[in-house]
Amino acid sequence: MAQQYFAQIYVTLRPSVLDPQGTAVQSGLQHLGYNNVEQVRIGKYIEVTLTAESLETAQQQLDHMCDQLLANPVIENYRFELQALSTPMNMSS
Amino acid sequence: MAQQYFAQIYVTLRPSVLDPQGTAVQSGLQHLGYNNVEQVRIGKYIEVTLTAESLETAQQQLDHMCDQLLANPVIENYRFELQALSTPMNMSS
Repeated sequence: MAQQYFAQIYVTLRPSVLDPQGTAVQSGLQHLGYNNVEQVRIGKYIEVTLTAESLETAQQQLDHMCDQLLANPVIENYRFELQALSTPMNMSS
Repeated sequence: MAQQYFAQIYVTLRPSVLDPQGTAVQSGLQHLGYNNVEQVRIGKYIEVTLTAESLETAQQQLDHMCDQLLANPVIENYRFELQALSTPMNMSS
């Protein structure tokens, strides 16, 4: 039975990789007077809605999507949270 | 006593705002064979390390940072999670 899932994916630069965008934002914050900001790092937050037969299938597909397209494994890490949406697909028909 | 805080900020487009980047990623995923992906929306994930006198001060400052620089309140929503880092600042000296 196909079920709808909602995934929240967080893609972040690996700690060893420089983050010029984060440095620029930190500098911007300091210009606004926030001198107590010590570090800023910027990543991506991706929400994906998908249908799958099971939670495990959805997890495996999301892993592949992240490796293939959503993240660059050479310089980025990713993690995701996955939850089933309340209504199974065949109950809406 | 100044304390170090770590904030995780999520900036997302308001639901009524079109997300062409998300649509492009969804199309890319479908080209890779993931036809079960129904929606993709892309936001920003920002990690900020800052020092502040209290959790409340840190919260207020982060609200202002988001309103002023990190998010565009006209088209974006934001939320953040804030936690104190374990070591108070004056214990490291």
